[in-house]
Order: sequence, then structure tokens, then C-alpha cells
Amino acid sequence: MSKMTRLPSPRLLMGPGPSSVSQGVVDAMGAPPIGYLDPELFELLEGIRVGLRRLFGTSNQFTVPLTGTGMAGMEACLANTVSPGDQIVVVAAGYFGERIAELAVRMGAIVTVVRGEWGRAVDPAQLRATLEAGPAPVLVAAVHAETSTGVRQELAPLAEIAHEAGALFLADTVTSLGGISVEADKWGVDIAYSAVQKCVGCPPGLSPVTVSEAVLERAQKVNLPHGYWFSDFKLLGSYYNAPHVYHHTVPVNNYYALDAALSEAFAEGLRERFARHITASGALLDGLAQMGVNPLAPTDCRLPTLNAVIIPDNVDDQQVRTNLLTKHGIEIGGGLGKLKGKIWRIGTMGHTADLNNVERLLAAMKTELHR
Amino acid sequence: MSKMTRLPSPRLLMGPGPSSVSQGVVDAMGAPPIGYLDPELFELLEGIRVGLRRLFGTSNQFTVPLTGTGMAGMEACLANTVSPGDQIVVVAAGYFGERIAELAVRMGAIVTVVRGEWGRAVDPAQLRATLEAGPAPVLVAAVHAETSTGVRQELAPLAEIAHEAGALFLADTVTSLGGISVEADKWGVDIAYSAVQKCVGCPPGLSPVTVSEAVLERAQKVNLPHGYWFSDFKLLGSYYNAPHVYHHTVPVNNYYALDAALSEAFAEGLRERFARHITASGALLDGLAQMGVNPLAPTDCRLPTLNAVIIPDNVDDQQVRTNLLTKHGIEIGGGLGKLKGKIWRIGTMGHTADLNNVERLLAAMKTELHR
Repeated sequence: MSKMTRLPSPRLLMGPGPSSVSQGVVDAMGAPPIGYLDPELFELLEGIRVGLRRLFGTSNQFTVPLTGTGMAGMEACLANTVSPGDQIVVVAAGYFGERIAELAVRMGAIVTVVRGEWGRAVDPAQLRATLEAGPAPVLVAAVHAETSTGVRQELAPLAEIAHEAGALFLADTVTSLGGISVEADKWGVDIAYSAVQKCVGCPPGLSPVTVSEAVLERAQKVNLPHGYWFSDFKLLGSYYNAPHVYHHTVPVNNYYALDAALSEAFAEGLRERFARHITASGALLDGLAQMGVNPLAPTDCRLPTLNAVIIPDNVDDQQVRTNLLTKHGIEIGGGLGKLKGKIWRIGTMGHTADLNNVERLLAAMKTELHR
Repeated sequence: MSKMTRLPSPRLLMGPGPSSVSQGVVDAMGAPPIGYLDPELFELLEGIRVGLRRLFGTSNQFTVPLTGTGMAGMEACLANTVSPGDQIVVVAAGYFGERIAELAVRMGAIVTVVRGEWGRAVDPAQLRATLEAGPAPVLVAAVHAETSTGVRQELAPLAEIAHEAGALFLADTVTSLGGISVEADKWGVDIAYSAVQKCVGCPPGLSPVTVSEAVLERAQKVNLPHGYWFSDFKLLGSYYNAPHVYHHTVPVNNYYALDAALSEAFAEGLRERFARHITASGALLDGLAQMGVNPLAPTDCRLPTLNAVIIPDNVDDQQVRTNLLTKHGIEIGGGLGKLKGKIWRIGTMGHTADLNNVERLLAAMKTELHR
């Protein structure tokens, strides 16, 4: 039944995540576990929290690696800010913006979606118009880096409009954190979540979140959705902070990997790291353009982390992806939702964002597209 | 800020979990990740599911390693069976039984707790009397191996009474799965959750669950609590089973570790594995008895996986545990809830359940207790 000691086939992960990770990170992941109340665990956790604050550009005390993946982080952030019956507004021009709305609806919120074209950023004026017309939301949410379209949404203008309307501002930074600059405090982001398996450079299993005092205060006052014990920031705070009361058994090996990845990121330098993502993405798009494969998003809002490119006519989406995986050992992603079959999503994220990897993919693409 | 390549101090984990794991398991954890839609991932997942069915003693198709820890599994199982306003009955004689009740209350259930003395099993007649007196519950829940007291609760009699009352039966098998026999189908367990970091022999991060068709059918019909997108079995089923629709990015490295741990368990043989737990626990309790340290639970309901022992008078609980950790590199656990300061919880679980480890702890205990 099992694979025993058989290793997985080597894969260059250039999809929408997980990305490939460094040897140092997987080595760290394979260290023996320690206990969830071990003083060394809290030392490790504190180091991770300091590092995550740097990546998020925040001084928020409650900045932690939640147990779970990015989607668990999305749900936890909503569950700690939205009460049933609350008005919330979601700015969405892609699959993950729509998911925020979907989860909030499930929690009983009254959700207004400010929709933009998939593959473009949303004009902040649309949000302003919505807030001027409608009832006052408690929360406005937006996606910084839309994984389904490769689009960067500037957050500061949206946060400003949200705050003028008296709302808190929530950001999805899943495909930006560690790959492009995130400045939560400067931009007015009150709460944000991310994932470690994209630009941060870890195997999946943790969702970094940062939560302002304003959000924590609100969470004390409001009638949050029923349930959500595992994601309750108040309960979690008693574990992450002294007196470190037992809540759940945190995944310590995933902490080791995150700690190693953060160390590598700061040893490289964030500016250098962000530049590396831009270089890799630029080389990828240049090479693909020569094969007639062009990006979905215009330059002014295009992400250097997730490259959404339009599948040329007469090309078999699934066949190309299968061949890349099985013949060349390279994973790229297909389109999600209404972009399924229309685009590929190619990640240049974290450890994967490297010119050698880009060259390898371009050579394989050339073969598979017969260009 | 970070520990760079510094390894954690070596720890012999003899607390209530995580347990120490084999070199093979951590080596597997440190393999490079692959993608969440990779055909090899689904092959790996299928192997894990077959292995988990064997551990759970079930043929349930929906037997999967949920992303999260045991507490996430507890919450997911409740969220997929209990609607707000439902009557549920929890059999509780410890901290984790009470937690089931706490989570169900948060979800809006009307909860009746059949309470027993901490350190003893609950008499099934108590459950029968409660069900005869009260309104019909949709669910009866109980803890197979109560991690806070070291007590084994026989499940078959409780399941039978629950079914006679028309209720589904939920079991917490966190501290039993992989360490003592679990026979979900034979005992009439409709849904159960566990954790991988205790008797299964992995680092924490996954919660094995098994769910019968009866539960899945109910989950389709009822008005489940708002929210719980991440834990929704219906959505998860579409990922775990073909057509494998993207839900969230599963923690593949934790899958590697679980696959390796299951392989090791079946290579050892389950009967031999369970016997090893009994041998280790027996040697531990014999040795401790010679120092005047005696078990909380009577022999007829005592677990061989988690040994709850009474702290002798005039012994400083915290000092002994700190010395064991810092001077001897051995972690044991303190008491939870009303047993805090009164007992130690010593795990002989998974890879830790070994006579050499027991000898090492006994020698250290002898030093620290001056016996």
C-alpha cells in the first residue's frame, strides 16, 4: 500500500504553488520534533514571528504562523472579524476574491462584491462608489496578488477608502508575501493572511497571519460566527503568547522549515529577493513571447510571482501540462474558474524564481509547443 | 532572529504527544515537495487512505488525513454532523470529553454531558439512563483514549446504546489509533478522528478521520453550522476523490511522513505494535511503582499509551518536569484541567514506546525524585 522509502519523482514546481524549496528548508523540516510546550519551541516561534512581521511590514504583535494552509488563514481571518448579519464588501477580480465572498456568505455575512474584469486590477473608484451608495460595512476585503489572474492590486487606495467608511481592511497576501513588497502598516492593512508554500519558500502547512489591535478589539466585542474554536484568535493568543496555554499541538516541523526559509530570505536580502522575482518573471515572459505566448495582465498591474499567460489557439492545454510534468518533470498550473482552459499559471516564486529554472521551462515549452 | 541551520536540542518525547518519531519518518518528511494535483500525490494519498482504514478497522471510503491537528479533526467531525439547535450527548470523564462538549456548544448544539469521574471509565448504564430520560440526540460522542486521564473507554457498548436511540456515534481516537486496537466498523463507530503525532508515529500536522456513509448522507441533509468551508467534507470529498477538484494546498511533506509511518507500522505488524505499547507501559509503571509513583487509573481501564501517574506528596511538579527536560532531555506532560499539579502524563506511544526509552526515563526519574 505504501511507497516505503521511495522518494517522490523530482519536480520543478512552477505552478501556482507549492513552489520548489531549498535543500536547507527540507533539511530543516526533517529534524526531529520537539514538544509544543518546550521552551525551545517558543524561542523558535518568537523568531518566526519577528521574521513574519518583517515580511508583512508590520509591528502587529499578533503575527503568527497559523496551523493550516492559506485557505485556513482566509477562513480564520473572516471568522474573527465578521458576525452573522454584518455587511462586508469584497473587491474581487478573480477566483480568490470570489472565494472570500463565498466564505463570508457561508458565515452569514451580507456580502457586496465589487467586481472587476479578471486579468485587470479593480479601479478604487468602484469601491468608493459602492461604499457611498450602500450601507456601511464592517470590513472591506481585497486580494493583493490574485493567484488566478497574475494581477497585483494596489492595497493602499482601497484601505484608505475602507477606513473613510469606518470599515476594517483585510488583505489576501498569499501570492505576494516574500515575493514582492508587502507594507501592511504603511498601507493601512488591518488584517492579512498568507501561505508559506509560494513566495516564502516552504512546503505547505502554515498560514502566516498578521492582526492589528483594532481587529483584536473588535473580535472581543462582536458576536462572531458559531464554532471556529480552532481558529479563535483569543484562544490562540493564549498559546502563542505567554502563558502559553495548551490549545492544539502545533506542527513543529513545519515551524523548522519556516524558520529556515525566513533565515534564507533575510540572508539574501528582501530587496534582492524581490529583484530576483522580477528578473525571473521578465525572462520567462520574454522567452514565452518569442513562442507567441503572451501574458494576460497588462504591465502596470502584472505580478512577478505568478505569471498568467494566454494559451495559444490550437494548443491542447492538458496535453502540454501533462507532457511538461511527465516528460520534463516540470509542473505548471492551469486556469481556475472562468479562465480554465484559457490560461496557464506559471509561478516564479520563492526558491523557484531562478533563471536556470526559467531556462529549463522555456526549453521544455519550446519542445512541447513545437516552436 | 532565526536559528539558521541550528538543530533543536535532542528530546526524548514521553509526554502526551508529540511522540518521538523514527529516522525513516523524519527523512521522509524532508523530501522535496510535489504539487497538490500531481498524479503521484494522489497515488500517495490512496496508499495513506488504505493504511488509515486498516488502523481504524473500517471500510469507510471517506477515510482521509485532514489538514490540521487532532483538534481540527474534532471540530471538523462536529461541524459535519451537528446543526445549530440539535441535541447531542457527550460522554465525558476528562479534559477532551469536555472539549467535545465545548465545541458543540459553540456550534449552537444543545449539549447534555454524561459525566464520569476523571480517572475512571464511564458506566454505559449512565448513557442509557440519560437517553431514556431526555430528548433524542442526533449524535452521541465519546473519547476512546482520554489523554488527560490515561483511561480507555470501551466504545462498542456506548455505540450500541446510541444506535438504539437513533443517534450517530462519534469517537475521539487521538491517543489510541496505532497504539491499541481500534475497530470502528465492528464497534459501530460512525465517525472518528485522530492525530498522527501520538501512536501513529509522525510529527504533528494531520488529523486522520473516518466517516461512514450514514454520516455523509446526514451531512447532505442537515443545516450545518454557518461557515466551516475548510472542513466541509462535501467540498473535501471532491478533492480527495476523483475528479480531484482544487480545495486547498494539502501539506504534502506531512503526507510523506504519514506514509512512511504507516509502512513502518504494517512492517512491524499491528499485533506486535500493540504488544510493544503494553510492554513499554508495563515496564514504566513497574519502575515508577518502586519509586512510590502510582497510576491514576485502575487496571481494567488503564491505557498502555498514555500513563497518568499520581505525583507523590512533597514533590514539585514543575521542577521535576523542568529538570527532566533540561538536564536529561526528556519531556513528560503535566496534568490538564482539574488534574493540573496532581498527575504526570507519560506517553509510551508510537516510536517512543520502547524499553530503552523507559529505562532512560526511569533512571532520570530516580535521580530527580531522589529515590
